[in-house]
Parts: sequence; C-alpha cells; structure tokens
Amino acid sequence: MHHNTLRSRVYRILRPYRQYTQGEYISRLFDIMLITLIITNALAMLLMTVEPIHRQYRTQLHQFEVFSVIIFTIEYFARVWTCVEVAPKSSRERTWPNWKRRLRYMVTPIAIVDLLAILPFYLSMFVAVDLRILRLLRLTRLIKLGRYSTSMQTLTQVIRAEARTLLAALSVLMITMIFAATGIYYLEKDVQPQEFSSIPAAMWWAMITLTTVGYGDVVPVTLMGRIFGGLITLLGIGLYALPAGILSSSFTARVHLRQERFREAASSAIADGDLSERDFEHLEKIRGLLDMDQEEAKLIIRLLQHRHSQGETGDTDT
Amino acid sequence: MHHNTLRSRVYRILRPYRQYTQGEYISRLFDIMLITLIITNALAMLLMTVEPIHRQYRTQLHQFEVFSVIIFTIEYFARVWTCVEVAPKSSRERTWPNWKRRLRYMVTPIAIVDLLAILPFYLSMFVAVDLRILRLLRLTRLIKLGRYSTSMQTLTQVIRAEARTLLAALSVLMITMIFAATGIYYLEKDVQPQEFSSIPAAMWWAMITLTTVGYGDVVPVTLMGRIFGGLITLLGIGLYALPAGILSSSFTARVHLRQERFREAASSAIADGDLSERDFEHLEKIRGLLDMDQEEAKLIIRLLQHRHSQGETGDTDT
Amino acid sequence: MHHNTLRSRVYRILRPYRQYTQGEYISRLFDIMLITLIITNALAMLLMTVEPIHRQYRTQLHQFEVFSVIIFTIEYFARVWTCVEVAPKSSRERTWPNWKRRLRYMVTPIAIVDLLAILPFYLSMFVAVDLRILRLLRLTRLIKLGRYSTSMQTLTQVIRAEARTLLAALSVLMITMIFAATGIYYLEKDVQPQEFSSIPAAMWWAMITLTTVGYGDVVPVTLMGRIFGGLITLLGIGLYALPAGILSSSFTARVHLRQERFREAASSAIADGDLSERDFEHLEKIRGLLDMDQEEAKLIIRLLQHRHSQGETGDTDT
Amino acid sequence: MHHNTLRSRVYRILRPYRQYTQGEYISRLFDIMLITLIITNALAMLLMTVEPIHRQYRTQLHQFEVFSVIIFTIEYFARVWTCVEVAPKSSRERTWPNWKRRLRYMVTPIAIVDLLAILPFYLSMFVAVDLRILRLLRLTRLIKLGRYSTSMQTLTQVIRAEARTLLAALSVLMITMIFAATGIYYLEKDVQPQEFSSIPAAMWWAMITLTTVGYGDVVPVTLMGRIFGGLITLLGIGLYALPAGILSSSFTARVHLRQERFREAASSAIADGDLSERDFEHLEKIRGLLDMDQEEAKLIIRLLQHRHSQGETGDTDT
Repeated sequence: MHHNTLRSRVYRILRPYRQYTQGEYISRLFDIMLITLIITNALAMLLMTVEPIHRQYRTQLHQFEVFSVIIFTIEYFARVWTCVEVAPKSSRERTWPNWKRRLRYMVTPIAIVDLLAILPFYLSMFVAVDLRILRLLRLTRLIKLGRYSTSMQTLTQVIRAEARTLLAALSVLMITMIFAATGIYYLEKDVQPQEFSSIPAAMWWAMITLTTVGYGDVVPVTLMGRIFGGLITLLGIGLYALPAGILSSSFTARVHLRQERFREAASSAIADGDLSERDFEHLEKIRGLLDMDQEEAKLIIRLLQHRHSQGETGDTDT
Repeated sequence: MHHNTLRSRVYRILRPYRQYTQGEYISRLFDIMLITLIITNALAMLLMTVEPIHRQYRTQLHQFEVFSVIIFTIEYFARVWTCVEVAPKSSRERTWPNWKRRLRYMVTPIAIVDLLAILPFYLSMFVAVDLRILRLLRLTRLIKLGRYSTSMQTLTQVIRAEARTLLAALSVLMITMIFAATGIYYLEKDVQPQEFSSIPAAMWWAMITLTTVGYGDVVPVTLMGRIFGGLITLLGIGLYALPAGILSSSFTARVHLRQERFREAASSAIADGDLSERDFEHLEKIRGLLDMDQEEAKLIIRLLQHRHSQGETGDTDT
Repeated sequence: MHHNTLRSRVYRILRPYRQYTQGEYISRLFDIMLITLIITNALAMLLMTVEPIHRQYRTQLHQFEVFSVIIFTIEYFARVWTCVEVAPKSSRERTWPNWKRRLRYMVTPIAIVDLLAILPFYLSMFVAVDLRILRLLRLTRLIKLGRYSTSMQTLTQVIRAEARTLLAALSVLMITMIFAATGIYYLEKDVQPQEFSSIPAAMWWAMITLTTVGYGDVVPVTLMGRIFGGLITLLGIGLYALPAGILSSSFTARVHLRQERFREAASSAIADGDLSERDFEHLEKIRGLLDMDQEEAKLIIRLLQHRHSQGETGDTDT
Repeated sequence: MHHNTLRSRVYRILRPYRQYTQGEYISRLFDIMLITLIITNALAMLLMTVEPIHRQYRTQLHQFEVFSVIIFTIEYFARVWTCVEVAPKSSRERTWPNWKRRLRYMVTPIAIVDLLAILPFYLSMFVAVDLRILRLLRLTRLIKLGRYSTSMQTLTQVIRAEARTLLAALSVLMITMIFAATGIYYLEKDVQPQEFSSIPAAMWWAMITLTTVGYGDVVPVTLMGRIFGGLITLLGIGLYALPAGILSSSFTARVHLRQERFREAASSAIADGDLSERDFEHLEKIRGLLDMDQEEAKLIIRLLQHRHSQGETGDTDT
C-alpha cells in the first residue's frame, strides 16, 4: 500500500517526523510549520483579550484566525484522506473498505481533537453559540501538539495504565472532601454563616484545604473548627502521596521492562563473541526506540560483557 | 454449600459483580441500583443544607431518607443471613455453627460500616442524639461504595501494608509540629499576643505551615519568627516526601510481584512449545485477575518467547 | 555477660520490648509507663502556656515536672550503668574496661537526647538560663519516644542513607531561593519598598513561594514580578519532586533487598522437599524480623513452591 | 602527559578533591578556600542590599568584590591552561592541538559558568550595563559550588536523563494553565474586572493555583468560578505527582544498576572461595565509587555468601 502515489507522499509528510523511522526533510519542515502555527494561534487567542491589543489589532487577529482555520481544515481532510496508508492493525481490518477505515479513524481521540479545533469556527457562522464555550473549544488546538512529542505519549500511556487506580484515589479524595465539608459546616456555620452557608458552599473550603492550595479567603475560626481543619490538612498530605506513589510505580515498571528489553537485545548481540561495529549501531537504534538514557545503556552493556567474559561458570545469580 | 437454595441465590445477587468470576446479570443490576441509591442519598444530604432547597423539598427529602434506610436495612439483614455462603477460610471455621459465623461477619469493618449507615436513623427515634454527629455518621454510607471498586481495595491494602511506617511518619510530623508551635510561640507571643496566645493556639499556625496549606491568617512578623518559620516550611517539604516515598515503594513492590506472577504463568505456558489459543485465554484471565496493563502483559510474553526461541543456551542472565 | 545479676535484670527491663526477642512482661509494662510519662509531660508543657490553666494548676504542673525529671534521671543513670550488658560490637570493644564502654555509650545520639531531657532542669537551678531555650530543650524528651518504634528507626535509616543526596537537594533549594530573592528584590523594590527592602528580606517571600506554602502576606504586584514569580513557583514543583523521588528510591531499594532476603530463606526451606510446620514457624519469625507484609510473604512462598514443583527444567529465567 | 611539570601540579590542585582518587592535601585546602570565598562572596552580595550595612561597609564590600574577582579570574585562566592535562576522551581528541582542546573546554557549561562569574565585572568597566542584570549574573558564582559535590552531580544526571519526560510534564502544565486562565477569565471577568482583566492576567491566578501556592490575592468568587477553580486545584495534584513519579523512577533505576554493579564485583570476589582482607578493601573502594550505603553493601555480600555456601545446586532462582 506504500506505493509512491500522491496519497502516500502526503501521508509521509503529515506523519510526525521521528529520528528512527525513515523521515523526509519536508516532513520535518511541515511539523515545525504546524507547531509554530498552533502556538502562535494560541498566543493570538490569549492576546485578543488584552484590551489595548484587541482595539488595535482586531482585524489582523481575525484574519490570522481565518487563515489558521483554513490550514487546519486542509490538514484535517488530508489526514482523513491519507489515514488508509497506515498498515492495518489486525487481519480483520485488512479486509475493510477505505470508507470504513476512514470512519474508524475519525472517531479516534486524536481525530476528534483535530475536528474540535475547526468545528466551532464553522458552527459560529450558522448557529448562535455561546462565545465563551467557543473560545475554550478553540484551545483544544493546543492538544494537537501532543502528536509531536514521544515523551508526552509516554505520560499519556502511564496515566492511562494507572487510570483505574488514579480514579480510586480521586474517589477517596471526593469522599474525604464531602466529609470535610459536612464537618466544617456544622462546626462553623453559627459563627460564619456567610462563608459556611451550606455543605456545598463549605466544599470550596474543603477543596482548597485538601489540595493544600490554602487561599485563606475562607478559614475556620472556632476552636473545634480549627482542630477539625488541622486533621483535614493532614489527610491532604496523604491524598498527595497517593497519586505520586501510583505514578511512580508505573514509571518504575516501564523503566524496568525497558531495561530488560535492552538487556535482551544486548545479550544476544554479545552472545556470539565480541560487539562488532554493526552490533553497536543496532543497539544504538534500539536505545533510541526505547527512549533510553545513554549512560544507562552503556552500563548494561558493560555488565553483560563482564559477565560474558567470565564465562557461564554456573554463576548465574542476578 | 453452594446449592441453588434461596439463600445462595440471594448471596450471589448481593456479592459485588466481578468480570472474572461467574456473575449473573441480576447481580450487576443490583450493584448499579445500590451504588445509585448511595450516591443520590449523599447528594440529598448535602442539598438538604441549602436553605431554599430545604424549605421547598423538605418532605420529599425526608421520605427519600426513610426509603433509603429501609433498603439499607433489608440489605444489611440479607448480608448477615447469607454471609454463611462464603467458603470458610480455615479448617477450624468449617466446624463453626452458622450463628457463630454470622457473629464473626458482623464485627468485620465492612459489616460495621453497613450497620453505621442505618443505626443513627433508628437511634434518633428513641434517644435524643446530637443531630450533627448523626449527619456525619450518615455519611459513612459513602464508604459502602468501596465494596464495588477493586482499585480502591488495592489502595486500602497498600495503605494497610505500610500502616506502621506511615504512622511513624505521622509521629514525626506531630513531634515536628509541637517543636514548631513551641518555637513560634516564644518568638512571636510578645508582638502578636492575640494569634500566638499559647502553644496549643500556635499549633494552628504550625499545622497550616507544615502541611504547606498556608492560609496566611496567622503569619510570623518578627525577624527571628520569619527565620524560624522559613526553616519550618523546609521541614514541610521533607514531611511530604516521606509518605510519597513510602507509598511509592509499596506500589512498586506490588507491581514487581504482579509481573513475577504473570511471568511465572506465561513461562509455564510457553515451556511446552508455542502459545495455543487456549494458553492466550488463560493468560488473559490471569492478566485480568492481576489487574494488569495489557501492554505490560504483551511485553512480558514477547520477552519470554524471544528467550525461549533462543534456546536455553546457558544464557540465563536476566 | 548475661548472668542473672541485678544489672542484667535491670538491663532487660530497660531494653525496649520487641515481639521477636525474648521479652519479659515487666519490660513491656515499663515501656508503656515511660511512654505515658513522656507524652503526659509534653502535654503538661504545652498546657502550661494556656493562661487559665497556668493560673489554676501552676503548682501541680511544677510538681509533675519535678517528678518526671527524677524518673528520667534515674532512667538515665540506670541506662549508663547497664549499657555494658549489650554484647560488644567488635572484638576490639570486647577488651575495653567498663568505664570506657560507658563513656562510649554516653556520646551516642540517643544517650545525649536522654541527657538533654534532664540537664536543663538542673542547669536552671545554678545558672540563669534563658527560659525560652530551656523550654525548647525540654521538648527533646519527645525524641526519647523514637526508641520504641522500629518503623521510626527505619525512617531514620532511610533518611541517613540518602543524607548526602537530600543535602544536595537542599543546596539546590537554597541557591534557587537566593536567585529568587535577588530577582524579586530588583523587580519589586521600587513598588513595594516595605516588603522587599533588601535581598535578605525578600528571602521570606522566596521561601514561602518555593515551598508552595503561599501565605499571601507578601506578593509581587508588578507585571515583571508576577512573571518572575510564576517561574519560581514552577521551580517549586521540581524542588518538591526531588526529595520525594530520592526517598522513594531508597524505600524501594530496602523493600527489594528485604524480598530477596526472605526469598533466600524460603528457597532453602523449600529446597529439601515440602514446607514442614517448623519451616513455617521459622519463615514467620523471619517475616517478623524483616517487618514484612503477610500477603507479600505468602506470595513469595507460593511462587517459589510453584517453581520448585515444576522441577529445575532449565527454566531458570526470572 | 601526567609528568610532574608545573602545569600538571597546578591541575592536580585545581581538580576537586575526591576520597577515592589519589588526592593531595593542598588540593583539599584549595577546595575549602575557594568554597569559602564563593559563599562569603554571595553573602556579601546579599548584605550589600541591606541599607544600614551598605552605608557603613560600602568600601570594604567593594574591595572584597575586587579581590574575589581577581582570584576567580586567576582560577579561570589556570583552569583553561591546565585543562589539557585531562586524559582525552576519544582517540580523535588525542590528536588535537592544545589550543583546540582549550577552546573545547571553554565552551563546556562549567567553564561558561566560571566565565559568567567574572565577565560582568569587567564589562561594567567599559559598557554601561543594567546594574540589576549584572547582580543576578554575579550569583552564577554559586553554581561553581556544584563542582565540589558528587551528590549534586547525581541530581544533575538524573534530571538530565529524564529531561525530555520532565519537559513533557511541563508542557502539560503550561497547556493546563492556559485552559485554566481562559476558563476563569470568562467566568469571573464580569464580577472582578480588575483581577481578571485579560487571559494573560488570569494566568497569574492559574499559576498560583495549579502549583498549589495559593497566595489568596486573586480568588474566584462566583459559584461557577469556584466550581471551575476546584477542578483546577484537583489537576494541580496530578501535576505534582507527575515529576515526583518521573524522578522517582529514575532514581530507582540508578539504585538498581548500582546494586547490580556491586553484586557483579562481589560475586567475582566470592567465586574463588572466601573473602580475603584484600577483597574487602577492593569492595569497599567500589562501594565508595558507587556512593553506596554501607548497610546495603553488607546485605548484598551476605546474600551472595549464603548463596555461594549452599553450592550451585540448581537453585538459581533470584
């Protein structure tokens, strides 16, 4: 399917440039152009709200917006058009017609983000949409940047892998917050009826306290309220430690598997005697794909070489 | 003991639905119903304190409360009745009469939470209980939700496993707080006699500072007080890092053991040649039970297959 | 040296009771008594500063203080007297005379804390010491509690093992703070000459911001000051992550070694066929000594048994 | 190249003293002198801004500054002169002439910091530089301290190894901040037009909230604004957990590799029978180089000895 047709060429340009895949110069250029456009577009959106800038550059900013939407629209349709160039993931998918694969692509999160980045503009022409929601939607354009960073994709994977545990931590936080709000409401409502008028109102205090933001705009003043508040801040520490611990274990597991994969590759390279120049290149490529630290890779190779040189004298303890 | 009696059927409905145990559709329905009831009940409790809502929907909210308590009461007695359907955990327990096993169940934390969710309602009929404590107790209903989330049970297990170390960290925090309160009291009491009237009063500042909430309602103003306060905020960072580090190591240990268990299973599946369709299903089930990430599982299988294909050529380094 | 002399009996009573060493009932009782005394003493110290309590119970609180100091003094001398009962740590130490071993004990941190808990009281009789420093020193009594918690000793070990890296993180924080204070001083001094009168004065803001306490008593108001302040808060996040990461890796390393030690023990127990009742007791004792989670231990044993039952069929991958 | 010429002797003095390399006493003395000079210099810079000190000690502080710059200048040129004493890192570098190696050294980060520590002083003589930028640049002298701490170099390595992932986390923070600022701007601008005059102005609130500093100088007051603000504080928790988790995994990976390297060394030492006195010294030296905890090393040795004593009875599971 990767013939040198127009479609496949457009696809290769649109595809984010990666160091370790065969990338063309023009693909890299296109990436940089699009990234620049997204960022300047977001900046324009922010500056538009500054009164003096808005007054003076109103027309220019609007023209830039129209220009951006046109580019993004072309990009969107080009992506939908070329998405069939991607190798099918399953044998079942291989038999699908193109329109079905295109529909399938259009409901992926990344394609929806691309659509949300342009749709509000066209909608506002026909329907009377609330301008504020429109503006917020336009910011989804920034999410388009995620396509170009492998590290950000790593973050997304880690968070998705731990999504259920993180959600449980969030539930604990929510339940703690309701407890905190209910407690402080009954303890403080008589002295500060304005700030703690109801439990939902007391939730503002509970949230700001449990997340240790602590604005200080609403603060318990009674003795019992302060004792209760002190205990709540303590819980806040624990609620911070939970996600940190969860994500930390997930990152550690990834690093562990990454090291193991590299070790596997290095181990088979070393097995047949010495490391040739070609072996090194091969390992360097794998290191790049695994997004691994150079020093770490060196260390693993050195350890394996040392072990290999000692011979497999039964000393197989790890 | 798992005959198709009424008791065993009720038990299977009450038991939280899990994907990897044989679950009936009605069990899932019952779970959703109960979860909805618990959440709407909590919401009703919160909204009851909003003046306009309280004035208008007073009767309805009270009726809903009565209805909820009736359901929870039936649920409680059904759980006590059917708890003998659970397979006994020890050979000694197998010889116990039913009433003894039921008593044993009634003192488990989860059964006590179930009881606390209904008891206050009945108590308030006969005794004059403080309404505020009653309301707080009613919130324990939210804890009933924990039954339905495996991730929340993981959290509980991790926290319980590290309970002693976390308690030690808490003790360090308490002792640091007392030091901080004593220090700031002697340094600031002359300039701000109102805010730092005694060491127990100064504890409010110490707590809010050590947990980095920092409301700003009580703040040191003298030079020495600010130097001392600055040092205390430094300690606050360390006191945050401790629980994060403790929980992180516990989560990591769990992930490590989980990977090992899966590796064990996959390794014996691979040992007898190739992975059959049935092997895959088996591993998928284990993956589900271990609450493991799909990508992680794939990687482990691939590594083992690679190792197996190379033959056990003495290259047993990990 | 462990004859049943008076000295050895006193030593065994003073020694903190541990579940896995042969402990006498009276030793446990003595521990509880002393812990209670330390805590009530600290409470008395705190309450003494509350005006109404001080006025009414002045004499009683003073008498309690005198009583406590007497007990702590007896305890201190008893500990110095019996310290020679501890088995010498090195062959060189074995040849030392008792007075030299006692002197050695007296300069250990724990003995110095014991001394600091009583010394201020006696000093204040002869010399005119600043009462405030005296009171703070009296709080060192709380540190005496550390003797009775194995978990707190674990914390101390972890922190001490990572002391150098933590100090480096602290140095980074201090240098960042100086940068922040210098920057904000030049940016804000013209607009807020009161709050940012000099760089040392600006350090108060820098500290409160970098540690994310954020009282809000001193806040940048100029545009440049806010941009600079925003960047500084960003650094604050990183400075929080450093100690959390450092401690986390240290805890993880401990857990890893602990699992390995248990595995070693369990592996040799399993090697000679099945696990006998005595093997279980032995492993349970080791589990206790390693302060290990029951579930974790069970899992390791099950994994080893599974592996053993499969025979060592060359399947030695970990 | 390491002849006993003047240049090689100066090089050995300038080189930071390390316990495990052959160091001369004079090298250590020089280190301490320079560290003292850097710190007192920074202190002088800070105190200069305190009005009374500035008025009284103006001349002395200026003279100290001139003296410091002279020393730092001599140090800089001595370092550039002697940098060719370092063993070349690659075979290509060995053929370079000295001036090329010196130029190469001069563009390393550490040499640039050394230059920045003196350049502003000389520049201010000829050009009219903004005094504020000058003063900030002078603070780079503090970074010179990094040369003398191995732990700080460990921190730098860990942060550099995770730089890309940390940058991704930072990008997520920035995008979240822009969303938060845009949201709160539209929700609060009508009620608080002063505080939320534009999206860039609202960024101050977003930053202070997301980093959980929470000064409380700008706070949402509308119902919708508070609900939105509460959600944003929640995201703040996650954004804290990300860098903590990333750094934690990196530290853990380092500890893991460190343990493995030590195990390798200890394993080959144990392989030939017992541990001789010389083996112990060798391992102790390696332990020092790896910056490893004494207790950790002991444990690993004990485990390996235990395993070795059991013989390699096929029990090679880890």
